[in-house]
Amino acid sequence: MINHRVKDIKQAKQGKLKIAWAENHMPVLMHIQREFKKTQPFKNWKIATCLHITKESAVLVKTLVAGGGIVSLAACNPLSTQDEVAAALADEGYHVYGWRGVSTKEYYQNINHALDIKPDITIDDASDLVFTVHTTRIELLKNIKGGCEETTSGIHRLHAMEKAGALKYPMIAVNDARTKHLFDNRYGTGQSAFDGILRATNTLIAGSTVVIVGYGWVGKGLASRASGMGALVIVTEVDAVAALEARMDGHRVMTMSTASQLGDIFITATGNKHVITQPHFQHMKNGAIISNAGHFNIEVDTVALEKISKKKVTIRPNLVQYTLPNGNHVYLIAEGRLVNLVSAEGHPSEVMDMSFSTQALSAEYIRKNHQTMSAKVYNTTAAQDQRIALLKLQSMNIHIDKLTPEQIKYLSSWQEGT
Amino acid sequence: MINHRVKDIKQAKQGKLKIAWAENHMPVLMHIQREFKKTQPFKNWKIATCLHITKESAVLVKTLVAGGGIVSLAACNPLSTQDEVAAALADEGYHVYGWRGVSTKEYYQNINHALDIKPDITIDDASDLVFTVHTTRIELLKNIKGGCEETTSGIHRLHAMEKAGALKYPMIAVNDARTKHLFDNRYGTGQSAFDGILRATNTLIAGSTVVIVGYGWVGKGLASRASGMGALVIVTEVDAVAALEARMDGHRVMTMSTASQLGDIFITATGNKHVITQPHFQHMKNGAIISNAGHFNIEVDTVALEKISKKKVTIRPNLVQYTLPNGNHVYLIAEGRLVNLVSAEGHPSEVMDMSFSTQALSAEYIRKNHQTMSAKVYNTTAAQDQRIALLKLQSMNIHIDKLTPEQIKYLSSWQEGT
Amino acid sequence: MINHRVKDIKQAKQGKLKIAWAENHMPVLMHIQREFKKTQPFKNWKIATCLHITKESAVLVKTLVAGGGIVSLAACNPLSTQDEVAAALADEGYHVYGWRGVSTKEYYQNINHALDIKPDITIDDASDLVFTVHTTRIELLKNIKGGCEETTSGIHRLHAMEKAGALKYPMIAVNDARTKHLFDNRYGTGQSAFDGILRATNTLIAGSTVVIVGYGWVGKGLASRASGMGALVIVTEVDAVAALEARMDGHRVMTMSTASQLGDIFITATGNKHVITQPHFQHMKNGAIISNAGHFNIEVDTVALEKISKKKVTIRPNLVQYTLPNGNHVYLIAEGRLVNLVSAEGHPSEVMDMSFSTQALSAEYIRKNHQTMSAKVYNTTAAQDQRIALLKLQSMNIHIDKLTPEQIKYLSSWQEGT
Amino acid sequence: MINHRVKDIKQAKQGKLKIAWAENHMPVLMHIQREFKKTQPFKNWKIATCLHITKESAVLVKTLVAGGGIVSLAACNPLSTQDEVAAALADEGYHVYGWRGVSTKEYYQNINHALDIKPDITIDDASDLVFTVHTTRIELLKNIKGGCEETTSGIHRLHAMEKAGALKYPMIAVNDARTKHLFDNRYGTGQSAFDGILRATNTLIAGSTVVIVGYGWVGKGLASRASGMGALVIVTEVDAVAALEARMDGHRVMTMSTASQLGDIFITATGNKHVITQPHFQHMKNGAIISNAGHFNIEVDTVALEKISKKKVTIRPNLVQYTLPNGNHVYLIAEGRLVNLVSAEGHPSEVMDMSFSTQALSAEYIRKNHQTMSAKVYNTTAAQDQRIALLKLQSMNIHIDKLTPEQIKYLSSWQEGT
Repeated sequence: MINHRVKDIKQAKQGKLKIAWAENHMPVLMHIQREFKKTQPFKNWKIATCLHITKESAVLVKTLVAGGGIVSLAACNPLSTQDEVAAALADEGYHVYGWRGVSTKEYYQNINHALDIKPDITIDDASDLVFTVHTTRIELLKNIKGGCEETTSGIHRLHAMEKAGALKYPMIAVNDARTKHLFDNRYGTGQSAFDGILRATNTLIAGSTVVIVGYGWVGKGLASRASGMGALVIVTEVDAVAALEARMDGHRVMTMSTASQLGDIFITATGNKHVITQPHFQHMKNGAIISNAGHFNIEVDTVALEKISKKKVTIRPNLVQYTLPNGNHVYLIAEGRLVNLVSAEGHPSEVMDMSFSTQALSAEYIRKNHQTMSAKVYNTTAAQDQRIALLKLQSMNIHIDKLTPEQIKYLSSWQEGT
Repeated sequence: MINHRVKDIKQAKQGKLKIAWAENHMPVLMHIQREFKKTQPFKNWKIATCLHITKESAVLVKTLVAGGGIVSLAACNPLSTQDEVAAALADEGYHVYGWRGVSTKEYYQNINHALDIKPDITIDDASDLVFTVHTTRIELLKNIKGGCEETTSGIHRLHAMEKAGALKYPMIAVNDARTKHLFDNRYGTGQSAFDGILRATNTLIAGSTVVIVGYGWVGKGLASRASGMGALVIVTEVDAVAALEARMDGHRVMTMSTASQLGDIFITATGNKHVITQPHFQHMKNGAIISNAGHFNIEVDTVALEKISKKKVTIRPNLVQYTLPNGNHVYLIAEGRLVNLVSAEGHPSEVMDMSFSTQALSAEYIRKNHQTMSAKVYNTTAAQDQRIALLKLQSMNIHIDKLTPEQIKYLSSWQEGT
Repeated sequence: MINHRVKDIKQAKQGKLKIAWAENHMPVLMHIQREFKKTQPFKNWKIATCLHITKESAVLVKTLVAGGGIVSLAACNPLSTQDEVAAALADEGYHVYGWRGVSTKEYYQNINHALDIKPDITIDDASDLVFTVHTTRIELLKNIKGGCEETTSGIHRLHAMEKAGALKYPMIAVNDARTKHLFDNRYGTGQSAFDGILRATNTLIAGSTVVIVGYGWVGKGLASRASGMGALVIVTEVDAVAALEARMDGHRVMTMSTASQLGDIFITATGNKHVITQPHFQHMKNGAIISNAGHFNIEVDTVALEKISKKKVTIRPNLVQYTLPNGNHVYLIAEGRLVNLVSAEGHPSEVMDMSFSTQALSAEYIRKNHQTMSAKVYNTTAAQDQRIALLKLQSMNIHIDKLTPEQIKYLSSWQEGT
Repeated sequence: MINHRVKDIKQAKQGKLKIAWAENHMPVLMHIQREFKKTQPFKNWKIATCLHITKESAVLVKTLVAGGGIVSLAACNPLSTQDEVAAALADEGYHVYGWRGVSTKEYYQNINHALDIKPDITIDDASDLVFTVHTTRIELLKNIKGGCEETTSGIHRLHAMEKAGALKYPMIAVNDARTKHLFDNRYGTGQSAFDGILRATNTLIAGSTVVIVGYGWVGKGLASRASGMGALVIVTEVDAVAALEARMDGHRVMTMSTASQLGDIFITATGNKHVITQPHFQHMKNGAIISNAGHFNIEVDTVALEKISKKKVTIRPNLVQYTLPNGNHVYLIAEGRLVNLVSAEGHPSEVMDMSFSTQALSAEYIRKNHQTMSAKVYNTTAAQDQRIALLKLQSMNIHIDKLTPEQIKYLSSWQEGT
């Protein structure tokens, strides 16, 4: 088994400073880490993780290890690895596999390295680990007790697997925990996607027309931040209720076909495929900027964009200018991969604190409950949500009320009316 | 059976103008009304309703009648009846029972009048109809096939009944439909509660400190509108996740005990009992304004307020000034009853269009499916949500996208990853 | 001289309760009132005022009287008088002239009654007093030492008079004080105009398209509140810089001709004439609502609207439905007069506290400085702005910093650079 | 005379791509450039400029050269030079002097190089050019016809000079043009300062407490963007009116002494000295982040911070961690220099389009009018504002209304009243 594969282990020092910053900004996960040190929930267990290799996932790995686990970490995206963080982890002896700019082949090699520990638990960000186990590494299935999944995109896949009868071990839908999607998808992506767009273009958001494709939690976060920065927001949707919400939130709603003619900046957040396609590119204004905030790089049909373009110039890091047949330029950020992790640093530590605390406690839940779990998709518990949120509030020095006995009684009664 | 009991039937003309306005602003419900005229879903069925008697509920009643039903309407709140609308309905021969300012005794008399039609379906706004049937009118149970419930407060009661094994017929949780709570509770109450506060006080919201008690959908709507009008918002909560959301949305979060010292305006929206109590009144600033946006008048402990106050003066309609033992004045709007319906006109027609369309289609659902339903609380269907939302979008001339076959296939597959 | 002319003096009791509320919510003006009681700045002086007769202007009148003045008050708008407040003032012996719904003839009779005191100072809201003095009551000119003007519209007139050489006594542009227009025009009208629209229509603002005509301080306030309530805002302008500001603030900007086809609600705030005219009415959507937030009822060409309409129905107070030749309905609020004062109660007391404190101190300024002032338009002083704002902050228990000696020195030096 | 002094001319290619991007995003300045090519306003004139060396100032320099001028460019800040842009300019033969990280001595050497062209006009960003001319290069005064100044900080200095009788040639206050400060200071700094903070820290803005020091146009922009990103905003001020505006805009207002205990992120924007000082550092929460958005690095007393700190570690570029005597860490971004230009790229091109168009036309104005101008500070003209704003609107395809003859007449009349 290969211990680690990273870009340049000499970057370890800078990575360690970043990890230390993250530790200072992830109080809930650090609280859990201290607790795991005592309780050792993962003693004699092995956990394979496939996550964006960032200063925050480094803290998660260290937390799982503090809990007694043997842990491996493979990158879950070809362009999101923070090489100095990977170096820091490698330098400290962790099993880490990934660097910014891997090929697809290398990408799956790294996933296989991570799986070589023969995990009891898998922790995924978009289910490439689950997918690999279920297709080419089925020998590992017998040892796996359960898994956790971080993203909407991954849970789409898991539900499809469950429906098709293909899922072979229990999975916890970490994404669907309130402590995860309400914060990570909304405030996390909302902020970091614009961070990525600005680092790549430094364009003015105020007064620009921003087209948000999809009005789920990510889309809601993006739209709120776009408005908050002075943009005129257009939302496209396929769900009529979400479309109506967008309108009542003060945004224009229309078809992508119409929106493609009006947008200055496009951001996809659907978890679906080919939501911006060839006819849309051809309708766009000269200078339009295209980016993706969903997990996979299939939301924008970049293959079609490459095919129809007459010319392609890299203007600056993460920004490519395409010249269309009609002479217009459109700009694609980060090759259509998730703009916040490729062109910026991903979510702030304060947000990942909640997401990765949910991961850590969900993994612990599997450890404790796997014998009664079957091969389906589980939600996290309300109690876990309350626990993580309370710890977070405490770290912010915020106090909230508790139900009084009179109130608890009232809530369980039905006799008291008008 | 008494045909109607209203304040003054001579107000019918003004009521009819208001109902006509509502019809012009409820395109979805009018669409359903036209359809019901053809399909006659309620032929030979009787429907007892207990709703705020407003221009909008008048349109719902007419829609159910257009569908072949015999329909009665009792007021669901002692102070919310729009007397001219009740007059218009009475004048046109509808079974309507209620006037602004009924006593508790009259209130339940009216409910019993409404029940005298011996309903097949009950439609409730806070479950006083369900409650009456299950306690003093149990002879009606044998004929009732199902019911619909409009509010969070009512659904609390129904779940308590279900849990206690006391519920005797199937209920549809209309409130929990996305087309209802996402719009009615949030945008409807968000706007109309402030409308009620301004009509009662004409106070400046900008720069004031508004304390929102409860950060559910109503609380979220209130907080958003308060911010949008320039207020500094404080949220109190008992749910840690909701508390954290409030903070991330830019609001201060604290205990009610602390908030009671800082607020200029208080609005309760918890569905719970005694969330503002005697110690809170005594901490309040001189001039503090107190109001309630929840269904029942128990959120503010008005009994305690009456008891401790040295003096009480009605300053203007719906606004009473209490002099506390410490000499401070606090102002209570609408006796602590729901501020938007007592001090203003309730939700705009455009919002009730969605809520009452959900009611109408849920009643039709009971008609079609009651034989397979049992005595528990049901959710509405996703298809019904989509249908109502699409009709609403159409009425606003808004077009949205549809999934392509390629996208539908992608969403049901799991093989495609990085 | 007639002592007072009001609707019904028996309404005095209700009016006194309202004035008492205003006194409790105008701490700065009450502070000045207490001071005036001691300093008696207006001893032996007479002040004619022409203002909206509201609970707040009642407090101003009482403040000037407390300062030793003899004061008269005529209504400055045919529809804005709060009759119970006028009654209260009359009952207490004040010279008050006005009632809701005066004819134009009565309107100017009332102004002349107010002028019969032979004022030393005039205080105007839109310059009808100044206009009357300069045209039909020129005998009064010899005694007048100066005047104050409250509104943008009035200052337009004064600048035109000054430019034409027609102005015969010094005027202070109270509107242009930072303590006035930054608060009254923006937060005051911003809130109260929507209050007026909701009391007349109870329409849903969220998701509606609101067209703001004019992006001065009033327009900025309206646009901000419209956005804050969930509207999609369109701004029309003739000033290119203001138009660009509107866009950068996240609003759409277009010509009135285009906007007239898109708006659900129109609000004029230009201080100019005929900004919504016949062709615009004919382009409007069925159901469009039209209102005016400027001082005079000339912004909307209501004469043309009357002329082209086939039918006219009063739906409810302050709301008239016009049927256009194309069959569409449009709704005009408050006859095109200022929506906030006719259909609601005007600005909150907390805002008028600042505007009327500026009036009171400007009148005192004339008393002290009139001998060195000439017949032109003056601005208020920066020191007066700071004084009023500081008193307001103190009333809100807000403390701010002071410049240190080091900072004062730095600000007056130029040698310190990079 | 030295032709240029830059870091590394081999970076020219990347700089040229960036300048080309800027040209594509500065349509107004490019329009003026095309016009200048024809009209040659600066034929035989020399213009010394001292500006942030960015892709946008490169376009300004090229525009002035297109107008026939001989132009030099020195950096106006030790840390803001974009070296690849300086390289591109040098490579094309421009007189450019500056690199990121100059010493104070080198800084003034570069300014002197720029002055060696013996300018007719000076263009300044904070008046270091004016200062140098008036102190050590007074021999140049005889040839200088006028100057333009870009910033609030610089205009402070110029007014101090004018007041002291020290100013020797006419200066145009470009900053005070509506097309400059309403956009550049507000939307430009509002966005780019947060861009700088995020690039240095990637911290979560939502739910954080951001203290904005100073509520001028920059402070207003910062506060608006902070709110828009979900922060709780605290404003500190010395001007009571601005403080009250901040409160009415929904922000908390308090003294710096109190705010220093509550803030997570501090941003100074006062143009004044030592607004965050030693006692404030000692009150701050562990982890507090400090930054400056004003021109000079004197707003934060960094000297005191260095002195009291026990330890200092560079965590990552532009982010230094100080350990205070009480053990707390505070983080200083960009050494207290302007965060948007040092830690990000400065204002977006779209904003500088307006600021630098104002510069270009103000320089042309001096060329045309210098013979009638005297040694004082001038404002730009309203016509110039309208022209620039109209060009900008046109570039965005936005059309606005024009006054009708009837309206023009109305605005100049005063007879038409109620």
